[in-house]
This record gives sequence, structure tokens and C-alpha cells, in this order.
Amino acid sequence: MIAKSTIKLINSLALKKYRTKENLFLIEGDKMVKEALDSDLNIKLLIVTSQFLDRYQISQYNTDRIVETDANELKKVSLLQHPQNSLAVCQIPKKPVFSDKLPDGLSIYLDGIQDPGNMGTIVRICDWYGIQHIFCSSDCVDLYNPKVIQASMGSFNRIIRHECPFEKLAGLAQKSETPLFGAFMSGDNIYEQQLPQQAVLVMGNEGNGIRPAVENQITNKLSIPNFSQNKVKAESLNVSVATAIICSEFKRAYSK
Amino acid sequence: MIAKSTIKLINSLALKKYRTKENLFLIEGDKMVKEALDSDLNIKLLIVTSQFLDRYQISQYNTDRIVETDANELKKVSLLQHPQNSLAVCQIPKKPVFSDKLPDGLSIYLDGIQDPGNMGTIVRICDWYGIQHIFCSSDCVDLYNPKVIQASMGSFNRIIRHECPFEKLAGLAQKSETPLFGAFMSGDNIYEQQLPQQAVLVMGNEGNGIRPAVENQITNKLSIPNFSQNKVKAESLNVSVATAIICSEFKRAYSK
Repeated sequence: MIAKSTIKLINSLALKKYRTKENLFLIEGDKMVKEALDSDLNIKLLIVTSQFLDRYQISQYNTDRIVETDANELKKVSLLQHPQNSLAVCQIPKKPVFSDKLPDGLSIYLDGIQDPGNMGTIVRICDWYGIQHIFCSSDCVDLYNPKVIQASMGSFNRIIRHECPFEKLAGLAQKSETPLFGAFMSGDNIYEQQLPQQAVLVMGNEGNGIRPAVENQITNKLSIPNFSQNKVKAESLNVSVATAIICSEFKRAYSK
Repeated sequence: MIAKSTIKLINSLALKKYRTKENLFLIEGDKMVKEALDSDLNIKLLIVTSQFLDRYQISQYNTDRIVETDANELKKVSLLQHPQNSLAVCQIPKKPVFSDKLPDGLSIYLDGIQDPGNMGTIVRICDWYGIQHIFCSSDCVDLYNPKVIQASMGSFNRIIRHECPFEKLAGLAQKSETPLFGAFMSGDNIYEQQLPQQAVLVMGNEGNGIRPAVENQITNKLSIPNFSQNKVKAESLNVSVATAIICSEFKRAYSK
């Protein structure tokens, strides 16, 4: 039996307010929970079914508390529609210290990304393309939102997220002569550019794009050309899809 | 007031069984409903709030029936967590006739894509990249699933989806000497390929990839190289993200 207070605590972690208060977040899904067990994350509570225990040798892991339960009980605490066999309550890692030096290579700045699915997918894309530092405006969705964690498929633990006003990043970029690229509906055809290895890429909000105060500081505007037979109607790509295509363009020259 | 029987009918359209039985599907979201009104779709029932009526001049459109309602009532019929101001019940268009000739340019074959969000996103990507024909194995998620419609952002009505056994498509490809490309975890580095204008691209199931019987017929295996500092762990990209990156590679040479 999972105590009522535990169910209440876990359910509350859907909201940022309670994640901040408790300094805890949730990981669900067997593959991701197993990966969390193998990582440096501090797992405060692990709720698992016997299937999970049969499959993985939990005893060798260092977690504060393990509760064995059944599928029905797990459903009560899970935030997923179709829970698997495990759920981990983890401590939120300490905020990274920002060294005031722009990272080498390509960095990403997210300007008001609101949708947790997009944020998680972008985190996964960055991890794939070796982009370790993700800078975010203060109104971006929280990295520890359960839907972000879910969509990132474990990548949330391999990237470093900095909350940072754009002015600060732009200042550092200027100092190191790093160009600031931004994705726009009308910009230079990305397929015709020589993209540098050292750059900052800015991606904007789902509905409104990059805000004007940020746009003013962008040095290079990029667009993904539209090949649709009906250009008026196929009017945009999802921001995470656009991020993937642009990261691919930045990295393709360095894949050999 | 929306009649109970109407609420029941609309809610039932979440399931393929009832969509097939009624030959109807749902469109939600003001932008998409407006686009449906401007299209050739046969709208059987339009449920809207006064905000929607104030914004768009519905009277000029030819729809069978318009019901004006309020936000609370709309919530009862909506399948969305946060419904907007409109919902359209549309007739499922007639299945396209497949001419038994491979389309010109790039075509896509989806082998067991299950997640409606992925399917809708892939439809949107295809629309953007001018890929009009999407061939699907019979176990792919239905195009008229409400979540597919939602994620496609209107693109579902600009692409042609064929349900087609892979053998048939492979036969047509062989006849016209069209190469069959497939996305794999280990294949040739896509950034080092000269990709042809005329091709079929196969994308596989979220968990299992391309099934062996299909893999056997692929002529060119492609991979997106992994730039992660921890290649073992950043183990995959979401299938819709991978589709976007590969379509971009196929099209980039022809953007000028």
C-alpha cells in the first residue's frame, strides 16, 4: 500500500510550485527509471511492481526507499495514461554554475518555449547533436515538468539548462565574436549558408516566434525553405522539428 | 443546448471503429476549423461559440448544420483538455485511387507508426517538404484519429495517404528503378550521401524500427550520425524528428 500522503505528494509534483517547494521531480517509464538508477541522480523514492524487480536487480542500487506495489496502486500515483512498472521521485539537481564564458561549439537559446513536449524533444535533439548547454528565457517551461522529462527520454540528465536573460548571452557572444542566429519565417535560406562551428541559435515561442527585443540582437536570420505545393497553407513547422532541421544543418559539415 | 445523442456521437469519434461506422471525423481548434471551412471538406456539423461567430463570417460557408453554444457546453463534446471556440464534424473524404505508378520525387512509406502525435507531425513535415504521397502499412495509426488531425495542423487535408503493403510499393520502385531508402540505427552516414530526387524513404515503428521483411527489400540504409558526448546513452531520435532531418537532407540540394 502506498500511503495517502505519498500519493498526494507525488501527484503534486505535476506542478512547478510543489516541485520547487519539495525540491523533487518525477521520472516514469521503466527504461527512464532504469537509466536514472544508473545515473548520479539522487532517487528519494522508487515505486515499482514485481515485474520491474524481476527484470532489474534493484538491491545493488543506492536509493533511499523502495516500495513494491501492483499495477493498480501504481496507476493511482502515476501521471501517465498508461503507466509502466515504475516511478521514481528524485531530488532536483543543483543549478549549474554559469561560468560567464560562452560554451564552445553550438549553443541554443530558447525564447519562451511553452509546450513541454517541444521542450523535451528539443532537449533530446540537443543531446543527440552534442549541444550540452541550453539557455532559456525565464518564461520557458520548466525542465522538471513531468511531460518534459517524458519527452526528453533521459536526455534531460545529460544537458545543462541555464536560465539566462538574452542580453547577457548576447553580451558574451559579442565579446567572443560569436554570431547569433535565429529561426524566422522569412530569413536567409538555411541551405545556402556556410554555418560556423561556433554559434548561438535562437528558437522562438510556438505561437509568437522570437520576441522583438531578442530579434533586434540577432545577427543572422535563418529560414527553412517551404517546398509545399501550397506555400500559403503549409505555414509552419513545429518548433522542435525546426530545431532538429537547423541543428542538423549546423552539424552536418562536421560529421566525418 | 447540444443534444445528448450529439455529445455521444462526437465523443465516439475518438475511436476508429465509430469513425468508420459513421464515416465522420473531428476537427478542433479555431485555426484548423476555419481552414476546414475554407477547404473542400464536407462539414456535417459545426459547433461554435459566439466568439468564433464574431470573428468569422460563417453564414457565407456551406455547412449542413451550425450549433451555437458556450464554452461549458463545448467542453462536454471536446476531446481536448483546453478546447477553443469551435469543433467541426466532417465527412471522411473518399479513399484516394492509387494509380499503380510511383509518384514523382520523394515518397514516404511508414512501417507501423503507432503514435498519433508522430503521425500528425510527419504529415505536417511531408506537407512542408512537398511530399504529397504518404504510404502506410495497415497497422499505422489512422489519419483521422483526432490526435493525428491535431498534430498535423491542417496538413492532413493536403497530403494523400495510401494504405499499401510494402511488397506492392517495392515492386513499383523496382520497375521504375527507384531506390528504397530506410532509416536505421546503423546505416550509411546520411551527410555523406548524394541523395537522388526520385526515391522512397521508409521510416519504422517507434519501438521496433523497420520490420525485417521490409528491411530485406531496402536498397540503401541511412543513419543520422550521433554527435553526443555520450553516444551509448543518447540512443535515438524521435521518429518524427528523424523524418524531418532526413527529408531536409533529401530536399536541401533542390532549394535554390
